Amino acid sequence: MTIKRMEIGPIMSRVVEYGGVIHLCGLTADDQSQTIEGQTQQVLAKIDHYLAEAATSKSRLLTATIYLTDMSMKDAMNEVWKSWIDRDNPPTRACVGAVLARPETLIEIVVCAAR
Amino acid sequence: MTIKRMEIGPIMSRVVEYGGVIHLCGLTADDQSQTIEGQTQQVLAKIDHYLAEAATSKSRLLTATIYLTDMSMKDAMNEVWKSWIDRDNPPTRACVGAVLARPETLIEIVVCAAR
Amino acid sequence: MTIKRMEIGPIMSRVVEYGGVIHLCGLTADDQSQTIEGQTQQVLAKIDHYLAEAATSKSRLLTATIYLTDMSMKDAMNEVWKSWIDRDNPPTRACVGAVLARPETLIEIVVCAAR
Repeated sequence: MTIKRMEIGPIMSRVVEYGGVIHLCGLTADDQSQTIEGQTQQVLAKIDHYLAEAATSKSRLLTATIYLTDMSMKDAMNEVWKSWIDRDNPPTRACVGAVLARPETLIEIVVCAAR
Repeated sequence: MTIKRMEIGPIMSRVVEYGGVIHLCGLTADDQSQTIEGQTQQVLAKIDHYLAEAATSKSRLLTATIYLTDMSMKDAMNEVWKSWIDRDNPPTRACVGAVLARPETLIEIVVCAAR
Repeated sequence: MTIKRMEIGPIMSRVVEYGGVIHLCGLTADDQSQTIEGQTQQVLAKIDHYLAEAATSKSRLLTATIYLTDMSMKDAMNEVWKSWIDRDNPPTRACVGAVLARPETLIEIVVCAAR
């Protein structure tokens, strides 16, 4: 079975597909001056973008791991998350607190999806 | 290939099956007044429950990620873990420290299993 | 479909293969007196070792999750990482800060690969 890699950079591929499963790299917001709501929206838009590139969509998400710098921001993140997901087809999810790339990075999300 | 989702809530599915692999959401204890031993037992009982719902069992576990609020509790968690797993068929595992949903949440576990 | 487990210990399997995907447990350095560069090299050598045992190699990596005790060490880790990966075939990656097994444990990596 072949492995399909997209957006290959010096450190990682942004997208890797194998066996009908599409893995996305950990995604953070480009504009990290924004609040948790804004950063979450940016990350979810990136997920939409990469899923489309891999010919799938959020309705085919399997799992999501959400890392938050400050778990007190979880409720605010959840509001953006709930309005974004396909209500009939949400992935499994885990949300934990972790130190992220930079102090101003408030959220990082890793997902995998079916093709 | 179809995706099968179980226990769909407003934020996530508790169980997602695709391609013969069953993904469970991050699970925490319901009674978080308990010690790490008690919370671990509750989480492992939930894993048993959801795996049964997906027509599989702990002997078919592939991977486990264990998040602990306090890594000094790892040995105590391990005793409960070791008496629970199928000794002939343990999953791969990673155990790291992370901030969890609430201060009293001592453990969260994410697993995937084969059907 | 059968599950193949390798290096089964009392807590986990080091390697689990299912459906053409090989999962490795979370790996840390044996000599944790070393710097982040040395610990990263040790972990990557272990990954090479277990991938070979599972009859695959780093050019077939699908995903990597890197946990660092101190995110200020990310750039130093990245230098070792970049010289190790197959530049044409890197996995997806997420790198987050987390408390690890012992205070001197600077890095833990979890990967999965295609057979």
